[in-house]
Amino acid sequence: MKKDFDLLSLGEILLRLSPPDNERIVRGETFQKQVGGAELNVVSGASLLGLRTGMISKLPDNALGVYAKNRVRFCGVSDDYLVYDEEPDARLGIYYYENGAYPRKPSVVYDRRHASFCKIRVEELPEEMFASTRCFHTSGITLALAENTRNTAVEMIKRFKESGAIISFDVNFRGNLWTGPEAKECIEKILPYVDIFFCSEDTARLTFLKDGDVKSIMKSFTEEYPISIVASTQRIVHSPKVHTFGSVIYNAKEDRYYEEEPYRDIEVVDRIGSGDAYISGALYGLLAHGFDCRKALEYGDATSSVKNTIPGDLPSCDLKEIDRIIRNHKGVGGQVEMDR
Amino acid sequence: MKKDFDLLSLGEILLRLSPPDNERIVRGETFQKQVGGAELNVVSGASLLGLRTGMISKLPDNALGVYAKNRVRFCGVSDDYLVYDEEPDARLGIYYYENGAYPRKPSVVYDRRHASFCKIRVEELPEEMFASTRCFHTSGITLALAENTRNTAVEMIKRFKESGAIISFDVNFRGNLWTGPEAKECIEKILPYVDIFFCSEDTARLTFLKDGDVKSIMKSFTEEYPISIVASTQRIVHSPKVHTFGSVIYNAKEDRYYEEEPYRDIEVVDRIGSGDAYISGALYGLLAHGFDCRKALEYGDATSSVKNTIPGDLPSCDLKEIDRIIRNHKGVGGQVEMDR
Amino acid sequence: MKKDFDLLSLGEILLRLSPPDNERIVRGETFQKQVGGAELNVVSGASLLGLRTGMISKLPDNALGVYAKNRVRFCGVSDDYLVYDEEPDARLGIYYYENGAYPRKPSVVYDRRHASFCKIRVEELPEEMFASTRCFHTSGITLALAENTRNTAVEMIKRFKESGAIISFDVNFRGNLWTGPEAKECIEKILPYVDIFFCSEDTARLTFLKDGDVKSIMKSFTEEYPISIVASTQRIVHSPKVHTFGSVIYNAKEDRYYEEEPYRDIEVVDRIGSGDAYISGALYGLLAHGFDCRKALEYGDATSSVKNTIPGDLPSCDLKEIDRIIRNHKGVGGQVEMDR
Amino acid sequence: MKKDFDLLSLGEILLRLSPPDNERIVRGETFQKQVGGAELNVVSGASLLGLRTGMISKLPDNALGVYAKNRVRFCGVSDDYLVYDEEPDARLGIYYYENGAYPRKPSVVYDRRHASFCKIRVEELPEEMFASTRCFHTSGITLALAENTRNTAVEMIKRFKESGAIISFDVNFRGNLWTGPEAKECIEKILPYVDIFFCSEDTARLTFLKDGDVKSIMKSFTEEYPISIVASTQRIVHSPKVHTFGSVIYNAKEDRYYEEEPYRDIEVVDRIGSGDAYISGALYGLLAHGFDCRKALEYGDATSSVKNTIPGDLPSCDLKEIDRIIRNHKGVGGQVEMDR
Amino acid sequence: MKKDFDLLSLGEILLRLSPPDNERIVRGETFQKQVGGAELNVVSGASLLGLRTGMISKLPDNALGVYAKNRVRFCGVSDDYLVYDEEPDARLGIYYYENGAYPRKPSVVYDRRHASFCKIRVEELPEEMFASTRCFHTSGITLALAENTRNTAVEMIKRFKESGAIISFDVNFRGNLWTGPEAKECIEKILPYVDIFFCSEDTARLTFLKDGDVKSIMKSFTEEYPISIVASTQRIVHSPKVHTFGSVIYNAKEDRYYEEEPYRDIEVVDRIGSGDAYISGALYGLLAHGFDCRKALEYGDATSSVKNTIPGDLPSCDLKEIDRIIRNHKGVGGQVEMDR
Amino acid sequence: MKKDFDLLSLGEILLRLSPPDNERIVRGETFQKQVGGAELNVVSGASLLGLRTGMISKLPDNALGVYAKNRVRFCGVSDDYLVYDEEPDARLGIYYYENGAYPRKPSVVYDRRHASFCKIRVEELPEEMFASTRCFHTSGITLALAENTRNTAVEMIKRFKESGAIISFDVNFRGNLWTGPEAKECIEKILPYVDIFFCSEDTARLTFLKDGDVKSIMKSFTEEYPISIVASTQRIVHSPKVHTFGSVIYNAKEDRYYEEEPYRDIEVVDRIGSGDAYISGALYGLLAHGFDCRKALEYGDATSSVKNTIPGDLPSCDLKEIDRIIRNHKGVGGQVEMDR
Repeated sequence: MKKDFDLLSLGEILLRLSPPDNERIVRGETFQKQVGGAELNVVSGASLLGLRTGMISKLPDNALGVYAKNRVRFCGVSDDYLVYDEEPDARLGIYYYENGAYPRKPSVVYDRRHASFCKIRVEELPEEMFASTRCFHTSGITLALAENTRNTAVEMIKRFKESGAIISFDVNFRGNLWTGPEAKECIEKILPYVDIFFCSEDTARLTFLKDGDVKSIMKSFTEEYPISIVASTQRIVHSPKVHTFGSVIYNAKEDRYYEEEPYRDIEVVDRIGSGDAYISGALYGLLAHGFDCRKALEYGDATSSVKNTIPGDLPSCDLKEIDRIIRNHKGVGGQVEMDR
Repeated sequence: MKKDFDLLSLGEILLRLSPPDNERIVRGETFQKQVGGAELNVVSGASLLGLRTGMISKLPDNALGVYAKNRVRFCGVSDDYLVYDEEPDARLGIYYYENGAYPRKPSVVYDRRHASFCKIRVEELPEEMFASTRCFHTSGITLALAENTRNTAVEMIKRFKESGAIISFDVNFRGNLWTGPEAKECIEKILPYVDIFFCSEDTARLTFLKDGDVKSIMKSFTEEYPISIVASTQRIVHSPKVHTFGSVIYNAKEDRYYEEEPYRDIEVVDRIGSGDAYISGALYGLLAHGFDCRKALEYGDATSSVKNTIPGDLPSCDLKEIDRIIRNHKGVGGQVEMDR
Repeated sequence: MKKDFDLLSLGEILLRLSPPDNERIVRGETFQKQVGGAELNVVSGASLLGLRTGMISKLPDNALGVYAKNRVRFCGVSDDYLVYDEEPDARLGIYYYENGAYPRKPSVVYDRRHASFCKIRVEELPEEMFASTRCFHTSGITLALAENTRNTAVEMIKRFKESGAIISFDVNFRGNLWTGPEAKECIEKILPYVDIFFCSEDTARLTFLKDGDVKSIMKSFTEEYPISIVASTQRIVHSPKVHTFGSVIYNAKEDRYYEEEPYRDIEVVDRIGSGDAYISGALYGLLAHGFDCRKALEYGDATSSVKNTIPGDLPSCDLKEIDRIIRNHKGVGGQVEMDR
Repeated sequence: MKKDFDLLSLGEILLRLSPPDNERIVRGETFQKQVGGAELNVVSGASLLGLRTGMISKLPDNALGVYAKNRVRFCGVSDDYLVYDEEPDARLGIYYYENGAYPRKPSVVYDRRHASFCKIRVEELPEEMFASTRCFHTSGITLALAENTRNTAVEMIKRFKESGAIISFDVNFRGNLWTGPEAKECIEKILPYVDIFFCSEDTARLTFLKDGDVKSIMKSFTEEYPISIVASTQRIVHSPKVHTFGSVIYNAKEDRYYEEEPYRDIEVVDRIGSGDAYISGALYGLLAHGFDCRKALEYGDATSSVKNTIPGDLPSCDLKEIDRIIRNHKGVGGQVEMDR
Repeated sequence: MKKDFDLLSLGEILLRLSPPDNERIVRGETFQKQVGGAELNVVSGASLLGLRTGMISKLPDNALGVYAKNRVRFCGVSDDYLVYDEEPDARLGIYYYENGAYPRKPSVVYDRRHASFCKIRVEELPEEMFASTRCFHTSGITLALAENTRNTAVEMIKRFKESGAIISFDVNFRGNLWTGPEAKECIEKILPYVDIFFCSEDTARLTFLKDGDVKSIMKSFTEEYPISIVASTQRIVHSPKVHTFGSVIYNAKEDRYYEEEPYRDIEVVDRIGSGDAYISGALYGLLAHGFDCRKALEYGDATSSVKNTIPGDLPSCDLKEIDRIIRNHKGVGGQVEMDR
Repeated sequence: MKKDFDLLSLGEILLRLSPPDNERIVRGETFQKQVGGAELNVVSGASLLGLRTGMISKLPDNALGVYAKNRVRFCGVSDDYLVYDEEPDARLGIYYYENGAYPRKPSVVYDRRHASFCKIRVEELPEEMFASTRCFHTSGITLALAENTRNTAVEMIKRFKESGAIISFDVNFRGNLWTGPEAKECIEKILPYVDIFFCSEDTARLTFLKDGDVKSIMKSFTEEYPISIVASTQRIVHSPKVHTFGSVIYNAKEDRYYEEEPYRDIEVVDRIGSGDAYISGALYGLLAHGFDCRKALEYGDATSSVKNTIPGDLPSCDLKEIDRIIRNHKGVGGQVEMDR
């Protein structure tokens, strides 16, 4: 029986404010105004590729909340499961982002405490939501933000799992939100529910205290928990404006690793959200192509690589463009300099 | 003996974010980035006119705090008494402002809770500060923001008074911060220390439950408290883009009212901060001209009227410009169309 | 039985390009990029007020079409019934708009010929669409654009009527698209199907060759055709930047005219789409308030007046704002200068 | 025998730098970059109306000079008689302009000393230039800038006169360049050569020490000198954003005054250059319509009025637009709200 | 006998709309507004280097046409042979351009069908035009746009040839306008008239079905047709932001090939028009230096390479700059970091 | 005894006007508006790092002078020793700057003659200034600008030296201001007073006619004059957008050279002022760390390298950022991709 959604995600929607080009937060007269947030980035990218997606979040009931909702819709993501905070202290969390240029690193200032999202509760969402989707995704950020979001996320993971949804989880460890041991303890409680697991090599080592090579680390998660697929991205930062990006995916059932040539010397315009874009591509590959990990790898790598060239958190490439990029990457057919 | 400062003021410094021109908060891709805040507006205007001023406030120890400090300095205001909040939850309060056009009113969304300023304590400032200024100014907003800012403000009023400073106070009642009775109770406790008192007719009636005409109301404050000077502004809002502005000042010692023709049909570009600009002009008139209320009136009215034509919270006219505007307003000398 | 939509509308979606502020088309280095179109303006305004709406249109299958679709979604309008033109000559119609300032009038240059919308056919839309809405709206522009759009529109009017939808029609006569006699002949053929009829006094006289006062003209339409409600807007253009706006609505069943004080001296920022905004408000009033013509009048007048203060074709005020404007217009409750 | 040009003009071309909108010179991060200058404004407006015009000036031989030349060409004005200054101290004169809003006046800061134009000499221009035009125009600004420009201008007036050109002269008195008596003495020396004389009532009184009403003043010039036509503009400045504009023209041969209803309540966007635009319209009327002073009046008033609505010094309306504005001003034909 | 023009060119002038920086067509709120078109790019570059050039084209008689004409003049190109389309369906062709960043390619969306240029006829131009120029240039785009432009172009080639002009032709094959065989058939008919022939190696192979190395291919054209000079550019696209550019020129009379070191690792800002800039430099070299192919090579390579660093289609470097770049490229004299 | 200032500097403050991004001076509609000047760049950078600094300069007494003063204050630099020019020819010097992209070099057009700064005299500054600082800095540009600034600078060097200040001098040779021999003769007269000497290898060779390797050249200055420290920067310009930067410092007393790995492949955003930033870092290192040349080297190299990534002349990095960059450069601690 067909579900209304392919993918629902729980996460905070943030106002992103960034000075234009190479300007700095401490100077200048304008901020570019965008929205972002790890989980929103994921569903918005997946939606562009063709999945029917929706965002579960809580926004302030003011002009900023309306702005965020409008942007969500602009991205082709459903706002059916956005709830609103009418209390006087309602607020939209903010982050300030500044581009880097070697030897100056990109930098971020967060102002996301006390945001309306931190108050979201399972009871605010309709019961039927849990049966409406094929896949539910959330990340370690949502777990780390506040005790309430942690409880809500854990409860939702259980409820979606019960309703038959696939559970996708991205560790996305942030040292400014919680410590490694806190993350480890919490995440290990939800790993029994997770089907698709995104975890970088560094995080696996530092947070989960794994050792060995990346492949054996990936496999070890599937041995300890009933995880079907583990994906791990590999980014080399040559400078703030030049990255190389690739990934490895492990399919536990097949006991097989999927890899390809990385995208080398990406001309980075805005790196934020490229990790989330990877997840959007990988989930698209899995959900739209019968859990084909080769597709997940190719869509993940391409969607992430090209996200680096797009200003803002959110991807903006549709399936046609991504398919063209994959074909070029694989060197299929004649190469043209320009798409006309 | 000469003091380092003519005017010190305690108040919150806010990041102001506003869509350009007639654009809306719920749409658009840029915010104009400015700083503002009632007390900062006052000292920045007074500084432009020639007073040596400084701001007492608390800023987050991050890029936003540095930005705010830089802007304070740009305005010619001393940052000697800015203190910094290094805690992880440090934040700069924000307000979002959108211009109006009849029949659409200007609108403001506040996001100032939990700001670093709310934590400011008297002990963070150096002891010598209290003897360093001729005049100390604060407003009802600082009283209303949080219990801690209220205590700090009341304590500072007492300490500055003891050190021989003139105390200036602007009621600036904001219904979204506290109720009328709360304001009345609190402010009546500080009125015994106040020398120069700014209170609009509406606030006098609604908050202090005064009746009678505006002049008798003004006088009544000086009868109940040892207040020397009471000033009351009078604004007529023809539309969001057209205002008329004037004021009345009462000098208790002289038992005399000062009035002049209002500025009619002001071409309003940005109304925010024009009430604070009035105070900056009036305090300049009093402090630079031996408490001459005629000067206070003329500088107050001119500084406020012209502030309406300047984008952002902060005044930007120096003494030469204000003197020219006063001369034009009084019709002194030939009128030219343009200043060349 | 509840329908999926309150309002569906058939019409062209145009790319609007306008120089910023008072700049001219013949000079300058940027265009502001927006979308517009009479029917889109109507549904987008109605959606902001709370109706569930959708747009029936045809877009080129290229980046411009994707842009237009994204904007439709941003406005809260469903893109379920947008179809795409994959032929090599697919194009999005364009209009260039330049603001006026007395004595310079606003001006428009159209480049909408050969647009993909002109090719839209009934068969491209799913059968179930006709039963999915409470109301269908289109305008004389759609009739005038091309023979094919005329046929499609007439066919859709009949099909929606058969399926029980209310038919709303706006004459919106444009002399650069067809002649008065052409319009009259065509529109008279569809009036037998129309329930809610929008026609200005000038158009009634010049196109339908009516005479008498505006009220008798309005009534005459309901006598000749089975029209339930006729609405006629009244705009006085004092200058390109100052308008006065009001309307009259006639309810045939009640044989009653509804009127109110016009909005006087509106501070016009962008006049385009304000007539369409009237329709969105009026339809909201009728559809959400049981065909209450008083509500239609108040929502229509307020939505149109405030649209004049918003850049671009599309309204951007939600129900809360419009209700506040109506209360202010009726002088209910204390008036504040600013919404905080 | 047909001449190459209808109108040549000698004058300085300035770089104009202005903060956007209502921003101030003392703040902000951008300047709008334009060119202007009294005589350039005249020929550029006349060129738009259809005269073949050219500019006689001297520019620095650097990127700023190239920029100025490109703008001159953009306006449809010939650059055949621009000469270049290759000396190391070559510079383009600059003026900074800031818009006003009541009670803040527009303001100008000049930085035009030592400009390359001040070095222009008759010998730099080709001999054939003097026979190539029907009319030569210059202004009191060129006379006042430097002794060398004064000598060059006087010499050119004589040489053009000898070659049969009509001489047009605009007093354009600027108190910051010379005194009234200096101006009087110098201009009286060239009036014997002048055919068309532009002088405002104020200047006639204050500089030429005339009295009586404006009409008798205008006539008196033609009695003292062999001047054919005298034009005098009349501007009422209601506020920096609202002006009323009209003029009177006196034809000595006919002994007749031409007047019409002024343009009332012009919505002023940028007032600079509107006096020069008047001259461009008046000269067009005279040169293209056989010295018809009615045409000169109508084209002058319309071109000037509409210039006030255009950003920058330079007019941008062609003959079609001006004809439409004149028709609307005279109330000929039905009035439409918008040019489509 | 001296001709009025060195170079006239027939081609379409397009409005170019591009999102700023790395923004995308499918998002964003502004377009940068420029003009471009292969032949305009050629004459505008040649004009900057010092040739007297003019454009033969047809523009709509509306504000967009005026804008295009103004830009043509701004570039120093004569508008004597621009004709205007007054029909109601007159339009300026458009193309939308988006920058790339690896792995995202630059992309173009065309909307040039039904443009006024497609209607241009030989009879609209004055007879004397054909004798007024030393050289006539057009490209395969003009041939491909429409049957009418093909006929007009072929007819003009013949007429200019008869009048003694040198004929320059750039194949500029565009697969979205016509097929290879169509191009081959058409172009082979005009090659008997061509003196200077621009054709890339790829096009020679794919369209003209040539084989062998690039030099033998170039020579073969001169063996089959009375072509004097063949030029072939060689571009290596390392990424959308890094190119290497060089060329080979073959002089049939001398039977000699001209080559130089390519410009390596060009920092590409806007690649569009750099091929056309090559032609402008090469034609300048040939026409201004007695058909010296060494000059053509050096000016062509330098003008093209530097065009890549200039936003928009049109070159903006004058002879002094190009000479400096050539000297630097050849390592002549000390190298400075900056031109002061 | 503690001095009021750590560092005072004498130099011109210029208005800098630059087209945005890769736009050119000869085109475009905006200039970015900044201030700069070699000595201001030095003190502003040093102030950000924590030194108490002030600028000695002369500004016009107009809006441009006020703008410059405000920017000086914004940078945390004292305006106590700014004096104002009230004469009618007062002006702020200007320079126009355009970015480069290979093969187009960055370019500068100066318009700084006759600036108010050229009139600055020692007597305009208060006597106590000379005893108020630990260090005085100026450059060869101030010596070269005009005879008067040369005399003033030499006089100030002597007066500061007498008052016990350390004298810092940067040769900063500019061939467009004076010749090598002029520079040599003048500078050799002040070298007897200099303690800290900044001179590049090229300048040492070309201007001072030194030979040998860079180290022996550096040492030779300390042998001929009582100079304590000589610093020499080494910049490799790979292209306008990629530089490598390092330096050598020689301490005469220790007879020791300090060097470190250069910063390679800096992603250059705006190269202007990076040499001055070096001096600000080096002086900070020396003055804040007891003349520790290792600190001077590290702070100099880091401050200069990162300045290249900041738009405008002026540095904007505080001590925390520079310390972080130095740690990263030395590879201390784990490397993160982003500062959060």
